[in-house]
Amino acid sequence: MTVPKVFSRYRDRLDEELHRATRGPDLLLYTMIHYQLGWVDAHGKQEQADRGKAIRPTLCLLMCEALGGEVSEALPAAAGLELLHNFSLIHDDVMDSDQTRRHRPTVWSLWGRAQAIDAGDLLHVLAMLSVLHSGKPGSEPLLARDASQVVAHGCKLVTEGQHLDIAFESELDVDINDYISMIERKSAALISVAFELGAIFAGNASEVRNACRKYGHALGIAFQIRDDMLGIWGDQDITGKPVGADIRKRKKTLPIIRASEHATGDDRVSLRSMFNNVEEIPDVDRVMKILDNAKARQFTEDHMNLYLQRASEILADLPVNDWGRTNLNEVASFIVARTK
Amino acid sequence: MTVPKVFSRYRDRLDEELHRATRGPDLLLYTMIHYQLGWVDAHGKQEQADRGKAIRPTLCLLMCEALGGEVSEALPAAAGLELLHNFSLIHDDVMDSDQTRRHRPTVWSLWGRAQAIDAGDLLHVLAMLSVLHSGKPGSEPLLARDASQVVAHGCKLVTEGQHLDIAFESELDVDINDYISMIERKSAALISVAFELGAIFAGNASEVRNACRKYGHALGIAFQIRDDMLGIWGDQDITGKPVGADIRKRKKTLPIIRASEHATGDDRVSLRSMFNNVEEIPDVDRVMKILDNAKARQFTEDHMNLYLQRASEILADLPVNDWGRTNLNEVASFIVARTK
Repeated sequence: MTVPKVFSRYRDRLDEELHRATRGPDLLLYTMIHYQLGWVDAHGKQEQADRGKAIRPTLCLLMCEALGGEVSEALPAAAGLELLHNFSLIHDDVMDSDQTRRHRPTVWSLWGRAQAIDAGDLLHVLAMLSVLHSGKPGSEPLLARDASQVVAHGCKLVTEGQHLDIAFESELDVDINDYISMIERKSAALISVAFELGAIFAGNASEVRNACRKYGHALGIAFQIRDDMLGIWGDQDITGKPVGADIRKRKKTLPIIRASEHATGDDRVSLRSMFNNVEEIPDVDRVMKILDNAKARQFTEDHMNLYLQRASEILADLPVNDWGRTNLNEVASFIVARTK
Repeated sequence: MTVPKVFSRYRDRLDEELHRATRGPDLLLYTMIHYQLGWVDAHGKQEQADRGKAIRPTLCLLMCEALGGEVSEALPAAAGLELLHNFSLIHDDVMDSDQTRRHRPTVWSLWGRAQAIDAGDLLHVLAMLSVLHSGKPGSEPLLARDASQVVAHGCKLVTEGQHLDIAFESELDVDINDYISMIERKSAALISVAFELGAIFAGNASEVRNACRKYGHALGIAFQIRDDMLGIWGDQDITGKPVGADIRKRKKTLPIIRASEHATGDDRVSLRSMFNNVEEIPDVDRVMKILDNAKARQFTEDHMNLYLQRASEILADLPVNDWGRTNLNEVASFIVARTK
């Protein structure tokens, strides 16, 4: 599945904005965040590493343009979303003790946990500064204020989702409702914010904002379910994520929850024992076999498509132009079929 | 030294605002931040623990009132400062592995590092949401936007200061300039922001804002130098901070920097060896003796008074009312004489 062409449409302008937003004094701290963003190596020397797809800012700018807004006004807010996402990645890696991210050592594994926590905090605040800087220069600050509130509220949901995600690792019974309540915060929130920001900078009409928020919520959940699938059945060489990592961490992803509810006999007993016992590290091969037996992959894919369908229905009523509709549909198809 | 009476003037309104700003869903995550704020015990049961003096919000509201502004408009921003301060305390405790804060176990020591990092992130974002909510309800959002920019910029400086503080622990030569450049970020920045916020909500005139910022810068440095003194010569029962903790962590505080530049003979050799060798934990009694010999306490106190004097000169030109001038002077005297 190739990345839709709209992902390259804003890339240069976005990169320029990201550079502007992360300029600072000559401190190693700024090297750390430039490293996280994939621009330099651990010594601060320029390199082109994997920078990720910049999904959230792309969605924001695409929605803004699809609704007839000015991309340049939304650009600092879009960049803020990418910084926010990277702040959460730095902190997630510390929390999970992950050594590798996008095929490179993580920030904490290079500079220690204390400095990494601080670098994440800096990215968090640079994100807010960038959003506060959005809107037409010299114009009234309503859009910047509204955008900042939406972004901060989304970020609050992300921290709640992160809390639940950690808690679930040692919790006995996590059902699908618990799972949705976690991922709608941890993952869908910022995708929802991305689309709502697009609506803010394209007229700020409250019905359009609401519809965009709901659209992002549905698509964001589909996005995370796809992520869960890649975490289990993805190709390590493509995802850059070790095979079975999510299983070994006892992440209560949708396939696992489904199987723990629908597996039978021995499968049920051993899956529950592996995932409910914090002393034990689950056996990846055995878990994969149990998921197969419980047809967890088909269920997960069907569930993802339900949310994709919901998103598609909301999009049908959104006042976007034809160009935008085509591109939003392309992006949605990509989200549920991507291989990384 | 008793706490000036102005500290109780805003306490109830501030507490109410802090409660409003930290309301959330029924998650353990919110118990953690309410615990950090001193309102509940580790099980979420109400208790009155040491909540700190709420210095930053008090300074903000005092300046606002002294300049003739409406306290109620500045209140959410003032509360945001207190949340920001507590966010930085939670993360500092994780970074420093400190077990105790205000006579109670720290958040990470109760709930683990991952959850504590996340709880700090939540407080960070709740702080910004509170500031974004400031100003007269329904009025134009200029003040909320300006206040948010000032707060976020201050918070950026705090992360830079924290970075330097960690780096200095393993750095060989930290001189007084390096030290000032660290504490003006890590400590003075939010005190400077507190006063500037007061000016924003009392008319937002740029000359007054600038003067308030400079006033806070000078007073904030004096504040931190006093903190350094308390960290070495303070009474553990009053400060709640273990005797010699700063020394054992090889913190490059002003007394240490002074002594390492002015100690002679054996003193100089052993101080430098203790503070420049990351393998060695400094001997607290020996260091105290060296500080005595180098008259480091007197130097530190004189240096603090220089900044106090500078602050006093800036205050002389500020257009504050008589009530405000009296109270600001009282607060400044308290800052340099406090015992905790």
